[in-house]
Amino acid sequence: MTSPVGLHRVVEPAGVLPQAAWRLDARPEIAPNEVRIRVQRLNLDAASFRQLSEKHGGDGEKVRAEVLDIVATRGKMQNPVTGSGGMLIGTVEEAGRRSPLGLRAGDRVATLVSLTLTPLTILDGLARWDGRSEQVPCDGYAILFARSIAAVLPDDLHPELSLAVLDVCGAPALTARVVAEQVARRQREGDPRPVGVAVIGGAGKSGSLSLAAARRAGAGRTVGVVPVVAERDALAGVGLADAVALADARDPVALSTAVTTALGAPADVTVVCVDVPGCEHGAVLATADGGTVIFFSMATSFAAAALGAEGLAADVTMLVGNGYVPGHAELALQLLRAEPGVRALFTARLAAD
Amino acid sequence: MTSPVGLHRVVEPAGVLPQAAWRLDARPEIAPNEVRIRVQRLNLDAASFRQLSEKHGGDGEKVRAEVLDIVATRGKMQNPVTGSGGMLIGTVEEAGRRSPLGLRAGDRVATLVSLTLTPLTILDGLARWDGRSEQVPCDGYAILFARSIAAVLPDDLHPELSLAVLDVCGAPALTARVVAEQVARRQREGDPRPVGVAVIGGAGKSGSLSLAAARRAGAGRTVGVVPVVAERDALAGVGLADAVALADARDPVALSTAVTTALGAPADVTVVCVDVPGCEHGAVLATADGGTVIFFSMATSFAAAALGAEGLAADVTMLVGNGYVPGHAELALQLLRAEPGVRALFTARLAAD
Repeated sequence: MTSPVGLHRVVEPAGVLPQAAWRLDARPEIAPNEVRIRVQRLNLDAASFRQLSEKHGGDGEKVRAEVLDIVATRGKMQNPVTGSGGMLIGTVEEAGRRSPLGLRAGDRVATLVSLTLTPLTILDGLARWDGRSEQVPCDGYAILFARSIAAVLPDDLHPELSLAVLDVCGAPALTARVVAEQVARRQREGDPRPVGVAVIGGAGKSGSLSLAAARRAGAGRTVGVVPVVAERDALAGVGLADAVALADARDPVALSTAVTTALGAPADVTVVCVDVPGCEHGAVLATADGGTVIFFSMATSFAAAALGAEGLAADVTMLVGNGYVPGHAELALQLLRAEPGVRALFTARLAAD
Repeated sequence: MTSPVGLHRVVEPAGVLPQAAWRLDARPEIAPNEVRIRVQRLNLDAASFRQLSEKHGGDGEKVRAEVLDIVATRGKMQNPVTGSGGMLIGTVEEAGRRSPLGLRAGDRVATLVSLTLTPLTILDGLARWDGRSEQVPCDGYAILFARSIAAVLPDDLHPELSLAVLDVCGAPALTARVVAEQVARRQREGDPRPVGVAVIGGAGKSGSLSLAAARRAGAGRTVGVVPVVAERDALAGVGLADAVALADARDPVALSTAVTTALGAPADVTVVCVDVPGCEHGAVLATADGGTVIFFSMATSFAAAALGAEGLAADVTMLVGNGYVPGHAELALQLLRAEPGVRALFTARLAAD
């Protein structure tokens, strides 16, 4: 039996898991527990696309060439600088008879495991992509292992919309869980104070979903923090947060002042959804003692978070945002359907791409 | 009033907290809310010392020269590669009249905030240090801010022993909290299963303290994982863990097999205390669904942890090990006094240094 986590696809270095591998074997022939997907679209991780675009000064041709080179070299789309990948959309071409994923040939799916561990072969040279957007039209093959996750795309939503939501569906699921735990703890302890939640980058994809999830999980007051006036107006216009504040998340004093002013106190739960480095200290400073910071940004520095909290003598719980929470895809799609504010922000974002 | 978190000591870049600063103002004159320490010994962070030592091929003269250069350039001891620092021991020389730390001139103290944010001036060229140990005899000055933490050294323990314990005191405190929460949750839910705890790097400083803390917090079964036979024998000899397993923590399959075999199931709480890169996937794979991984190693990669858990579809909570938990110094010193096994490992380690 081949490895459920894909060890048999690792070419080098030997013995590591596919995500840590430098190079994967992306051959299209599948093992009995694998699934082959015919790829239609890649969705690059925001941090990865930003790095590539900035490196090449926005030159789409060069960005495209580098993505092609990465995939040809590594057998997967993993940005060597950011370490991040993204996800993909496609159609099941062949499902091995021992695959536990429940997929059938012809199913339209999005992969919910990262591109950083997904064997990938590009066949069309990305000829339909201008290198200027995270959404990459693509013809090629990808392989799913036994312990991968893929969501069948719903019929009632445009595939691009579903893909954009599923790409960040871990964030609202974990936010909901953490907020619900804080609410339950306050109830157990007879503490009548409402749970205050701050979402840094509240107008973005993971941010807007996290704001909606926090409110539904029982948050008493929420604030979305954004860096520019246009995002402030957009987020305020859709009513997803009780307050919207303008602040540079890299400025610890400005960020903590903005959150504390908006909530009337430091946040009980702070959710970091901005893909820029240097937000760790501000997030810690904006969070109450006994509170929790959830880092979803791939630009997070582990050492900056750990040493920052220690240096501030801050008794906060800091979570590495795990992209997998059971039921995360369903929850995120439900939020999109039920919350007009979320849908408006996603639709506007896709139109702008 | 000067900033309680030391913003007034930041030279560049402007506006960041001291830990994120490239350079601090280390002048000895104190503000009314500051404290000046006469430094006697630096204790370099293990990851930092290892990086410096490996970079210079174990040449102590070159390691010493680089430490002197870092402190002269940055006004603090923060390794530019690892981002980490360490801590120091010394005597209070002057306490500002508005300092809230409760320290008095003549108190023998250890700083419990990182050297990465502590203004430091070295006066003796580190002439008494051979560059071959994390423990650095040093004459110099350091500054504490209002929101710093320092512990007065106990009279009943050798200062070097206290320093070694206090350096890692956040690990046993957070481990105890997380294990106690898991035990309480099982009780609430009427789940009779014992809580299993794995400590990766169980024979080291933070590892041995974490094993002792886990057992006292109610862990039903514990395993310490170590990389070499000598550590296995040392840890097994002192009886701090129910089982001791030999495995390379960078090999995910080997690590998870070792933990699962020793505990009879994946761990409910996995504590990562080894200062080598690449342990994230093994730790996730060794942890049960619904369990928690606590990363204390400064060599942890945020992206590897986040994407690894997602790629394995692992529903685990991942914590950034916060070096500050209220009461951490007292708890760690109590463990040293009460647990002969902890004391034996620390004493042997100091003798070997």
